[in-house]
Amino acid sequence: MPSPLAEAREKLARANRIIANEGVLDAFGHVSMRHPTNPERYLLSYSRSPELVQADDIFEFTLDSEPIKTPAQRLYGERVIHGEIYKARPDVNAVCHHHASSILPFCISGMELKPVYHLGATLGSAAPFWDSRDEFGDTNLLVVKPEEGLSLARALGKHDMVLMKRHGVTAVGTSVKMCVFRSIFSSRNAEYQVRGMGLGTIDPLRPGEIELAGKIANSTTGLDRAWEYWLQRLTRAGLLPR
Amino acid sequence: MPSPLAEAREKLARANRIIANEGVLDAFGHVSMRHPTNPERYLLSYSRSPELVQADDIFEFTLDSEPIKTPAQRLYGERVIHGEIYKARPDVNAVCHHHASSILPFCISGMELKPVYHLGATLGSAAPFWDSRDEFGDTNLLVVKPEEGLSLARALGKHDMVLMKRHGVTAVGTSVKMCVFRSIFSSRNAEYQVRGMGLGTIDPLRPGEIELAGKIANSTTGLDRAWEYWLQRLTRAGLLPR
Amino acid sequence: MPSPLAEAREKLARANRIIANEGVLDAFGHVSMRHPTNPERYLLSYSRSPELVQADDIFEFTLDSEPIKTPAQRLYGERVIHGEIYKARPDVNAVCHHHASSILPFCISGMELKPVYHLGATLGSAAPFWDSRDEFGDTNLLVVKPEEGLSLARALGKHDMVLMKRHGVTAVGTSVKMCVFRSIFSSRNAEYQVRGMGLGTIDPLRPGEIELAGKIANSTTGLDRAWEYWLQRLTRAGLLPR
Amino acid sequence: MPSPLAEAREKLARANRIIANEGVLDAFGHVSMRHPTNPERYLLSYSRSPELVQADDIFEFTLDSEPIKTPAQRLYGERVIHGEIYKARPDVNAVCHHHASSILPFCISGMELKPVYHLGATLGSAAPFWDSRDEFGDTNLLVVKPEEGLSLARALGKHDMVLMKRHGVTAVGTSVKMCVFRSIFSSRNAEYQVRGMGLGTIDPLRPGEIELAGKIANSTTGLDRAWEYWLQRLTRAGLLPR
Repeated sequence: MPSPLAEAREKLARANRIIANEGVLDAFGHVSMRHPTNPERYLLSYSRSPELVQADDIFEFTLDSEPIKTPAQRLYGERVIHGEIYKARPDVNAVCHHHASSILPFCISGMELKPVYHLGATLGSAAPFWDSRDEFGDTNLLVVKPEEGLSLARALGKHDMVLMKRHGVTAVGTSVKMCVFRSIFSSRNAEYQVRGMGLGTIDPLRPGEIELAGKIANSTTGLDRAWEYWLQRLTRAGLLPR
Repeated sequence: MPSPLAEAREKLARANRIIANEGVLDAFGHVSMRHPTNPERYLLSYSRSPELVQADDIFEFTLDSEPIKTPAQRLYGERVIHGEIYKARPDVNAVCHHHASSILPFCISGMELKPVYHLGATLGSAAPFWDSRDEFGDTNLLVVKPEEGLSLARALGKHDMVLMKRHGVTAVGTSVKMCVFRSIFSSRNAEYQVRGMGLGTIDPLRPGEIELAGKIANSTTGLDRAWEYWLQRLTRAGLLPR
Repeated sequence: MPSPLAEAREKLARANRIIANEGVLDAFGHVSMRHPTNPERYLLSYSRSPELVQADDIFEFTLDSEPIKTPAQRLYGERVIHGEIYKARPDVNAVCHHHASSILPFCISGMELKPVYHLGATLGSAAPFWDSRDEFGDTNLLVVKPEEGLSLARALGKHDMVLMKRHGVTAVGTSVKMCVFRSIFSSRNAEYQVRGMGLGTIDPLRPGEIELAGKIANSTTGLDRAWEYWLQRLTRAGLLPR
Repeated sequence: MPSPLAEAREKLARANRIIANEGVLDAFGHVSMRHPTNPERYLLSYSRSPELVQADDIFEFTLDSEPIKTPAQRLYGERVIHGEIYKARPDVNAVCHHHASSILPFCISGMELKPVYHLGATLGSAAPFWDSRDEFGDTNLLVVKPEEGLSLARALGKHDMVLMKRHGVTAVGTSVKMCVFRSIFSSRNAEYQVRGMGLGTIDPLRPGEIELAGKIANSTTGLDRAWEYWLQRLTRAGLLPR
């Protein structure tokens, strides 16, 4: 019988690959989860493309983003994104950092991302922006120092995702499945918002609708149904972790 | 020799998978058909992604959307969409509810969908809108109560499809094949209409053209030819129901 | 050793499938070639989707579009497109009628299609329009009567392709390979023209460039190189005719 | 143990296929590298589509673009692009000439390509334009004469890529991996820039950011991680050179 940790690593490997297989992650980006039994640790792969991550590639980190055992492999430079968010948000159990093609235009132009259809309610009432220039001036745009991760976590606040100017997105979830769902459907919502704006005035969900539709979008029923579908697609693509 | 019901369930499983494989359905949405021998019942899968539906997953429902035998599995919350339309439209024998990426921008912006090429005539002269806000105020946008389904069926009226604001589409057909054809080619038409509007003034089909081209688009010849093609693609994708 | 006719039918089956596999043809559309030894006849499949056409599906037709032997299968309704063009254009040895998603917006809006990069020179200096309304008023938009085919052939004139309002495209070639090349690269050119226009003022090829680049685009070298590539992709997709 | 030359040819075959499999190269375009032990020569396939190139297809050329041994096969007409750049730029060890769909709209409209997100820094501070008309008037737009190659190399100057009006792109790298990375991620950047401009005012990377982010984008870590990912995708597509 697999241990909770072994199950968690397997689930996290699948999450990495599902988000990649659905086109939200590419060569870059990463997905983590909080340790299943020790909330002061989180799990994250060594530095490799998410579509390639195996359960064995996943290591334990302190919330200061130090590896428990130093692996032979190189680590993601941006792991403070994960550690600082787990510190600031005890309710968060999974984090995905990505550069989805449908949301990057928002990160580039500063256009506000809003839920425009029921499944878009997964992104919450708004996705705040974070701009590395505000506190750190000219950088390589990566979030590698603890203070940069802290600043990003502060911009995220109580929201479900944060848009990083000229860089990408960081989305969170109370569970791995919710984080996967949010990463994928907020990307779809972005695509529809752009196309809808091209056709006329858009009329986003109202606060009451966001609350009600968000409950459904993030319910176990919806998450399980979508997870089964994505897992089947992963299998057909020959991408199930070994 | 398979019974009419067994044949119907197999055909409906294929319809679900074809529409998904052609990119109109994703993790969500559902397709139903009227019972082949009892017009007071309809057939619908339990709650799972359309691309995964097998003949064995399909159950019988009364037109009040109650299952004849209560299955162990969870059911689609929105099955009243199907039941209320079958009640209101004796000519309708298949219903598809989807969130196609090409039509969602219309649902978001309120832009009118019009047939802009001969195959687009399958959508009829116009696709009316339905807005959950009009009668029900703030909801989770799903159509789950009988009165919501009834309201949607009323908005559909005698049309072939209805656009649901901030949500998706419901398309009908006198047969499963026609419903599949309409779901797919109205989505293509939407894409071309958007792109055509981006290039200049569009000049949609005239009423006489819609009537004449619609007859062809919905003729057995066209439906069978397209069905053979989609079925072949389904087979190549490894998605034929077992 | 295969006869010229057998070789021609095999090549035509491949041409149908290549154009479909490259996304220019879908469930509908058709490709024909002039008979390799009898210029008063042409070869065309019975009515099925181009991606499915086998050598055995291909029949001989007079230039009046009558089958030499009446097959059991249903025939394409629009075969007069082919017959009337072969009559009017002795230099043409292959014809493709399609509804490519990238060119349909031009057919809908009336925007002129122009060569905007060297490979686009395959479409010639301009693609004239044909509108079924001009001579025939309200129709189902299909080209099924000899006089409709004749009218279309007249609009094509000495050009390499003609855009059919609210319908699609007919492209010709002095050989099957050239017709395939033109169908595919004129569709790519359309996509780039639209995107280029979205970015600013476009600056199409000049007459001298169209002539010089057209010679290269339609040279044996280019045609053979592209054909090898598309055939390899067809093979990988499992779509080579049996 | 394979010789440096054998290893180089294998790597170059993979580079050709990776760039094609990621959608940047199609039937046309080509990738070369400087000879691993003799800087006065470069390696390039005979004239075939990049996705089909095998190690055995790759020949040696002088920097005047003459083959060391005349092969039986036809050669690329545009190989002076490679030779003239290797002459002018001793720091360059790989060259890719392509017609990526996302950058062609820039080549058609003259819109300036700018890095709009961190990975876009791989394209450098700016991509200059080269217009065949300026020095050569009406041509077939191909770069086939030594003076045309020299003119293009002059327009490239010290930059990392040059946009060729109404034609395509030539990108260089100090290594094969960097050239592949630049070809792919500058294409992604182009897509995001266009979409971002559609949403509002874009705010590209600042000079300091381009320098810092460029160092990271072109570091061994990033290049190796992306290469592993693309190679895995190539393998899954059945496209690994034999």
